Amino acid sequence: MLIISEIFGPTIQGEGALIGTPTVFVRTGGCDFRCSWCDTLHAVDKKYKDDWLTMSAQDVFEQVEQLSGGKPILVTLSGGNPATQDLSELIKIGKAKGYRFAMETQGSVSAPWFAMLDHLTLSPKPPSSKMRFDQVRFDTSLHNANNTNISLKIVIADHTDLEWAGELKSQYPKLPLYLQPCNLELKNTPSLEKLTTQTLNLVDEVLKRGWFDTSVLPQLHVYLWGNEKGV
Amino acid sequence: MLIISEIFGPTIQGEGALIGTPTVFVRTGGCDFRCSWCDTLHAVDKKYKDDWLTMSAQDVFEQVEQLSGGKPILVTLSGGNPATQDLSELIKIGKAKGYRFAMETQGSVSAPWFAMLDHLTLSPKPPSSKMRFDQVRFDTSLHNANNTNISLKIVIADHTDLEWAGELKSQYPKLPLYLQPCNLELKNTPSLEKLTTQTLNLVDEVLKRGWFDTSVLPQLHVYLWGNEKGV
Repeated sequence: MLIISEIFGPTIQGEGALIGTPTVFVRTGGCDFRCSWCDTLHAVDKKYKDDWLTMSAQDVFEQVEQLSGGKPILVTLSGGNPATQDLSELIKIGKAKGYRFAMETQGSVSAPWFAMLDHLTLSPKPPSSKMRFDQVRFDTSLHNANNTNISLKIVIADHTDLEWAGELKSQYPKLPLYLQPCNLELKNTPSLEKLTTQTLNLVDEVLKRGWFDTSVLPQLHVYLWGNEKGV
Repeated sequence: MLIISEIFGPTIQGEGALIGTPTVFVRTGGCDFRCSWCDTLHAVDKKYKDDWLTMSAQDVFEQVEQLSGGKPILVTLSGGNPATQDLSELIKIGKAKGYRFAMETQGSVSAPWFAMLDHLTLSPKPPSSKMRFDQVRFDTSLHNANNTNISLKIVIADHTDLEWAGELKSQYPKLPLYLQPCNLELKNTPSLEKLTTQTLNLVDEVLKRGWFDTSVLPQLHVYLWGNEKGV
């Protein structure tokens, strides 16, 4: 059985390599991390666990199917940390019906079924998160993902994060890298001026360093929907 | 010799498949079209032609090289319509030094050197532009681009445009399609609320039609820089 925080969509992916792509989100409940600036605490903090549902993979897929009107769509597995649960059955059921699967995870937990994904976004957490980066586990995630389309997405809150991203960038030069300004304003109507300033600063820093193979993208969904849940 | 409107960067690409990617823009002067909502009239309207420069391909490349500090970067050829000039020499010089080239053009004019590009964005103009779509010429552009990474980007101003995009989508199902709300506010400080509303409406329309392989992206540079030139 799977622990699910929310299933919603269709909407568009708001960040990273697949930005702008129509998708249904399956957000699992539970996380092995507790990042200082987590923007999905409702899927992380155990105090919300009464809101989480226990569902079979078949039930989850049926809900996805209903949301997409039975038409195959990209399913984005997110969390919390979706890698802490065995999602292989869900992926298997969906792929048999032509659905594609992307997953967003920090790389702290991995499993052989990563190879079944169509796209894997690894988002290792930088120092500002106050979480520890375990490179062995991260490498195991990469290894498990095998030939899956992989991209690296790093949230940047400050200069230390940026230097840290630079180190990772040198260690994994072949992974497409996306840097994303950290959403520090988690109230319902965040200041878009602040998000814009953060993005512009990040663009400047990246260009100043000559990181011309590194993309910078803000969270588009924050521009479009603020911090509203379920969109 | 090449007619150039502006060369600027490094900045990030603000739209389409390469959104967020660091790049230097080479904007050529002159266009065979005159779209009703053109947002780069300074590179299109002949009344601005005294601002355009006549430069050799070598001079253009040297300016790009200076802007990027001699470090290879993606060069985005835009306009006006860059396809109305022979850019093969510029691409050849740049590629010899490791630079990559993307081009944005409507597909009304094509040339064999399209095959030298690393990425081609074809942005055929919808009915609201008041321009005529010539499918034979469009197909010749596709043919010339050969194995180049091609994507389709269509600006959407109204429902007629959307229906038109739907027809093109069925005719070219294998081309990745990006829909972009039309920037109708060309003053220096456009209303971001309006841009957001337009984007949300476009997202709704795309999802309602079940176009799950069609991406929707606003012009990120308008969020970041308004309608400022040269960024």
